[in-house]
Amino acid sequence: MVDIKTRFEQLIENKDWKELKVELNDIDPVQITEIIEDAPDGDDVLLFRLLNRKLAKETFQLLSHDMQEEIIESMARNVKKLSTLLNDIEPDDRTAFFEELPGTISQRLIQFLSPEERNTTIRLLGYPEDSIGRLMTPEYVAVNPEHTIEEAFAHIRVYGKDSETLNVVYIVDKEWKLVDDIRIKELILADPQQKVQDLLDYRFVALNAMDDQETAIGAFQDYDRVALPVLNSEGVLLGIVTFDDIMDVAEEESTEDFHKFGSIQQSIANPLKERAWGMYKNRIVWLLALVFVNIFSGAAISSFESLIQTVVSLVFFLPLLIDSGGNAGSQSATLMIRALAIGDVKVSDWYKLIGKEFIISFLLGVTMAAGVAAIASFRAPEIILVVALSMLLIVMTGSLIGLLLPFLFTKFRLDPATASAPLITSIADICGVLIYFSIASWIM
Amino acid sequence: MVDIKTRFEQLIENKDWKELKVELNDIDPVQITEIIEDAPDGDDVLLFRLLNRKLAKETFQLLSHDMQEEIIESMARNVKKLSTLLNDIEPDDRTAFFEELPGTISQRLIQFLSPEERNTTIRLLGYPEDSIGRLMTPEYVAVNPEHTIEEAFAHIRVYGKDSETLNVVYIVDKEWKLVDDIRIKELILADPQQKVQDLLDYRFVALNAMDDQETAIGAFQDYDRVALPVLNSEGVLLGIVTFDDIMDVAEEESTEDFHKFGSIQQSIANPLKERAWGMYKNRIVWLLALVFVNIFSGAAISSFESLIQTVVSLVFFLPLLIDSGGNAGSQSATLMIRALAIGDVKVSDWYKLIGKEFIISFLLGVTMAAGVAAIASFRAPEIILVVALSMLLIVMTGSLIGLLLPFLFTKFRLDPATASAPLITSIADICGVLIYFSIASWIM
Repeated sequence: MVDIKTRFEQLIENKDWKELKVELNDIDPVQITEIIEDAPDGDDVLLFRLLNRKLAKETFQLLSHDMQEEIIESMARNVKKLSTLLNDIEPDDRTAFFEELPGTISQRLIQFLSPEERNTTIRLLGYPEDSIGRLMTPEYVAVNPEHTIEEAFAHIRVYGKDSETLNVVYIVDKEWKLVDDIRIKELILADPQQKVQDLLDYRFVALNAMDDQETAIGAFQDYDRVALPVLNSEGVLLGIVTFDDIMDVAEEESTEDFHKFGSIQQSIANPLKERAWGMYKNRIVWLLALVFVNIFSGAAISSFESLIQTVVSLVFFLPLLIDSGGNAGSQSATLMIRALAIGDVKVSDWYKLIGKEFIISFLLGVTMAAGVAAIASFRAPEIILVVALSMLLIVMTGSLIGLLLPFLFTKFRLDPATASAPLITSIADICGVLIYFSIASWIM
Repeated sequence: MVDIKTRFEQLIENKDWKELKVELNDIDPVQITEIIEDAPDGDDVLLFRLLNRKLAKETFQLLSHDMQEEIIESMARNVKKLSTLLNDIEPDDRTAFFEELPGTISQRLIQFLSPEERNTTIRLLGYPEDSIGRLMTPEYVAVNPEHTIEEAFAHIRVYGKDSETLNVVYIVDKEWKLVDDIRIKELILADPQQKVQDLLDYRFVALNAMDDQETAIGAFQDYDRVALPVLNSEGVLLGIVTFDDIMDVAEEESTEDFHKFGSIQQSIANPLKERAWGMYKNRIVWLLALVFVNIFSGAAISSFESLIQTVVSLVFFLPLLIDSGGNAGSQSATLMIRALAIGDVKVSDWYKLIGKEFIISFLLGVTMAAGVAAIASFRAPEIILVVALSMLLIVMTGSLIGLLLPFLFTKFRLDPATASAPLITSIADICGVLIYFSIASWIM
């Protein structure tokens, strides 16, 4: 790969377009994508236009959205080439591309599509943003259950050319309602004279076009399929969803959860490419919100002003104690958020987990109390009891808050990952300050 | 599904084994799995044994590891049934199951396998724990490039029965070195009299059996394939890896990252099922380690004892200021950890991100300084300048630490997610305390 890269960099530098055209069309789309993405501005678009039709289609789908836009823009004057490219891209990838364009541009581009392709795209664009309808491609092969295997293959040879996958074949009745799906393996292994319906068990797993894409992730994980059919509410087959689109969705979902847990408002696609201003906007929202949560810790502390002035050493342990509560809370929130996302734990399970968390956090609290008591014995022996007892209570409170908050958010139809580490830290801080200084003024 | 569940609960309660046998064999493995997992102890194993051979095999692979062990244990006396089941499971699922058993038990179980299956399993068990070799199944179909398509199909009909997938067919030379892979779609659509080699482009993507499983996740994301071939260092085809196994690995990886980021030592499989003691052990390690990091914040504060006694109001803003640094740091760490995990950012990119983070964190710091100044103007106007200036510097320091730590960990071959939110909070605390009180003693 390194050699190829250097080779192409050389050719691009020398502007040897003739040789580039030959060699570029001889490597695979993933490599081409890397070369185009790395090429200097201006050259990248020219490189793309050297590709033959098949490679152009395959490469386009792999390019970043920005690069895709650049290419389309550069082709705007060459109407014929542009419409060939747009018509060649798979409908689901095309929808994904149009999706991110400003409305007016996508409307203009849709006009370059053939009437047939246009219908498909517009239909796909009609589904809610995170619905399965947006992911599906209508490029599948359906056969009649009354055909023989041989006839089915003849049909597949004619209609299968445009199909995104032939790994699974769909069986539909006269109203195009899905009757069954069957793996190509079974058709190949069966006797050619047998009827298709003899192979069917009339059991299939299907998705609803209006359902959320997360449902699809779950279905692909439960049932090891390469593709799943998508139906409307009447059971009519509208399209299929393939596993590669689902893998992308799954990756986006976990990035989103991860980013939310770190208190980022909206998932940031690629920190290398994102603009500084966009990143600022996505980060400042939560940071400011947390400042206002933290005002309460300050208020709590100020009400203990005279106590602090008398025993200043209490302040030494303040960061340690409140952080420990936040840390224990982050741990339990982490566990719950991920378990809820994967489906290991349901909202209705919260009460089963509370008892266990009580025991665990008690054990954690006792251990940590012993630790902090050991430290205090060197530095401030007069407050050993205060810090140890506070530690135990603070760790337990933090843990239980961390456990419950993700459930609470889910209950109110918010993403459980909104219970971010920083949010839990801030809430645990308030509790920590109150517990610590209350115990201190009670004991001392 | 709810109806089915209630129905079966009824049948199980009535111990109507005869009817259960009929109805259980009539639903699909995913439903059966749910029913078995939900059934009372003892009944679950009996239910499993009511299944016919095909369903037993399919269901076994979907059950939790604990349930799998229970079933194998219960079958220990019925040698014939046990060995049928073990031989029926797909080799890669079997390896995954054996993997988690204590060594002596898996050795005993391997003896129940047929000589052929035993070889496969032992071979699969020879690869390093997180290697692709552990994921692969040897159940693929390979054809000779000199065959015609018709001959190839005849071959596939004979040898394809045991193949995990027929979606892709592999072309090997006489030494079983991989020459190309071809989608079944292309074979079906081609002229039966054509030779297989006429269809080949001799370009393929393959994995190395000794490589890390993360490599495979990347490859599946880059190339939209259903399965990828696995080769040894000589290019000989050893087996294939299918996308469903990769989806599981990808899910585990992101759970691990998520858990690490929340300061959990080792990923916890399912918080509902995990024992309290195991969860305690996985959580206490980091909590205690962080206590010792936090000692430094305490030490830093104690060196400013007289300042604090003079201006107690400084303490009110302590949690707010140090938390803000930690929060900004968690945000940048979140972005970097995920971007490194997905591959959007490479270790060598760190210097490209520093400049941008400097700008972003400056903007964040200025906004937050304005916020905290507004709060201080109500509560402690005498320290407005101190808190505002501290906030700016603390937010910037926290952000840069959060950005750099994941790179540093990767550099030292540690998981970037070790730069957990709590760790960053604690480190940011120390910096925060020092910045805050230094500025305070300098200004006042």
